[in-house]
Amino acid sequence: MNRILMMILVSTFCATAAFGAVRGQEVTYTTGDTTMKGYLATDDSITGKRPGVLVVHEWWGHNDYARKRADMLAQLGFTALAVDMYGDGKTANHPKDAGAFSSAVMKNLPEARARFEAALNLLREQTSVDPQKTAAIGYCFGGAVVLEMAREGVDLDAVASFHGSLAASHRAEAGMIKAKRILVANGAADKFVKPADISALTEELATAGVAFDFLNLPGAVHSFTNPGADAVGQKFNLPLRYDAGADQKSWTAMRRMFAEVFK
Amino acid sequence: MNRILMMILVSTFCATAAFGAVRGQEVTYTTGDTTMKGYLATDDSITGKRPGVLVVHEWWGHNDYARKRADMLAQLGFTALAVDMYGDGKTANHPKDAGAFSSAVMKNLPEARARFEAALNLLREQTSVDPQKTAAIGYCFGGAVVLEMAREGVDLDAVASFHGSLAASHRAEAGMIKAKRILVANGAADKFVKPADISALTEELATAGVAFDFLNLPGAVHSFTNPGADAVGQKFNLPLRYDAGADQKSWTAMRRMFAEVFK
Repeated sequence: MNRILMMILVSTFCATAAFGAVRGQEVTYTTGDTTMKGYLATDDSITGKRPGVLVVHEWWGHNDYARKRADMLAQLGFTALAVDMYGDGKTANHPKDAGAFSSAVMKNLPEARARFEAALNLLREQTSVDPQKTAAIGYCFGGAVVLEMAREGVDLDAVASFHGSLAASHRAEAGMIKAKRILVANGAADKFVKPADISALTEELATAGVAFDFLNLPGAVHSFTNPGADAVGQKFNLPLRYDAGADQKSWTAMRRMFAEVFK
Repeated sequence: MNRILMMILVSTFCATAAFGAVRGQEVTYTTGDTTMKGYLATDDSITGKRPGVLVVHEWWGHNDYARKRADMLAQLGFTALAVDMYGDGKTANHPKDAGAFSSAVMKNLPEARARFEAALNLLREQTSVDPQKTAAIGYCFGGAVVLEMAREGVDLDAVASFHGSLAASHRAEAGMIKAKRILVANGAADKFVKPADISALTEELATAGVAFDFLNLPGAVHSFTNPGADAVGQKFNLPLRYDAGADQKSWTAMRRMFAEVFK
C-alpha cells in the first residue's frame, strides 16, 4: 500500500471517529395527558436500518449526561433515544427531589411502563431503526427501570444496568423475560447496593433461565460511569465517584453484548 | 513498510501462534505419603518470569483435557501446572468412581488444601514463574476446588471456575478472600447448578467485597468447555455438551481477567 493512500485512510478514519455525523434532536411523546421530552441521536452518515437503544436517565432526570450516552451510542452505529421518565423533561437539583421523582415512577409501574413503551414505539418508528432490534440501558434509577421493564416482559433483545438499584418490588415470573441478554454492571464498593439485592437478582435471572453477565467492578462506587459524580457527591456528601476504568470496562461489556445479540 | 518485510512479519507471527515452543513435562509432588502426578507446561521461547496458573481437573481426575488447557495457557505466555487432586494420577472412567473420588477430596478440606498448596509451591519454584503472580482455574469439580481455595484464603491473584459446582460447605469469612478477581463461567442451562447456589455465591462474594464476573452463558449446559463432553454424556446419559461459543466466550473472559490482574 503506498504511503499517501495509507495517510488518506488514516485521516479518514480519524475524522469519522472524532466527529462522525451524529445528529441529535429533541423529541416529544405522550401518555394520557403527560408529555415527555426526549432526545434522539443517530449518525446520518450510516445508511440502512440499525438497532435502536433506549437510554434511561439517573434519578436526576433527563439531562445532558443521558444525552451524551445517546450520542455515544449513535457514534457506535445505533439509533438511541434518551427517554424522559418524569414527564415535561423535569429534572431535580437535590437528592430529596430526585428521590421523590424516582419513587413516584416506581410506585406506579403501569404508568412507568406506558412511558417506557411510548418511547420504545417512537424509537421503532424511526426510519433509521430496525424495529425488530431493540435494547435498553439505564443508569442508577434508570438501571432499575430497565430491569423492571425486562421483568414486565417488554419486548427488548438486551438490557444493561449501570450502577442501577437492584432492589425490586417483585420478581419475574417464569418465562416473562424476553431479553436474550442482561448485563448488570455494579460497583463492588457501591454502598447503595446490598449483597442480598445481588443474590436476589442473580437467583431471579438464573431461575428465569436468562443469559446474564453480573460484573462486580473492583473498587467502584455508585455513579462510576458519570464524570460529574464527584462534584455531586461532594455537594451532597454522598459516596459517588467517577471511575474511568470501571466506566470503560462496563461500556465495553455492553458493546460485546450488543455485538452478540445484534449480530 | 515494504512488502517483503511485511510478509516476514506476518509469517513470523503465524509461526509463533501456530507452533510456539510449548514444552510439557510430567512432575510429581507430595503431601505426607501421597504422591501427586501433575503436568507442567511452559513456552521456552519466552524469556523472563511470567505469571503461573494452576489448572484443576474435572471430577474424572488429571487427564489429557486438563493438560490441554495447561498447554493453551503456556501458549498465552503463562507457566501452567495441571494439578492432581486425587493422588497417584488416579482417574475415573465411571461417574460413580468420579463422584467417590471428588467427594473424598471435598470432605477432607485440609488435605485438599495441602495438595493444592503443594502444587502452588512447585509452580512458584519454577524459574520461569514470578512467584508473586499466581492464579488458578478449574473445571467442574476443579471449579469448586478453586473457589474453595479462594475462600480458604490461599494466596492467588485470580480464580476462574468453568462449569464448576457452586454449592459450598461453608462461606468465606470477611476479609478471607485474597483473590483480586473471580470469574465464574456457568451454563445458563446447566442442570447441576441450582439458582440458589448462584445467589449464595454472588451474595458471598459481594459481602466479601470481591470483584467478580458471573457469566451465565446462554444455552450452555454442564461441561460446555470440553469437546469430549458429548460422547461422555451419551455414554452415561448425562446432560453434558460441548458449546464452542460458550467455550470461547468464557476463555476470552479469563484472558481479560488475567490481562487486568497481571498488567
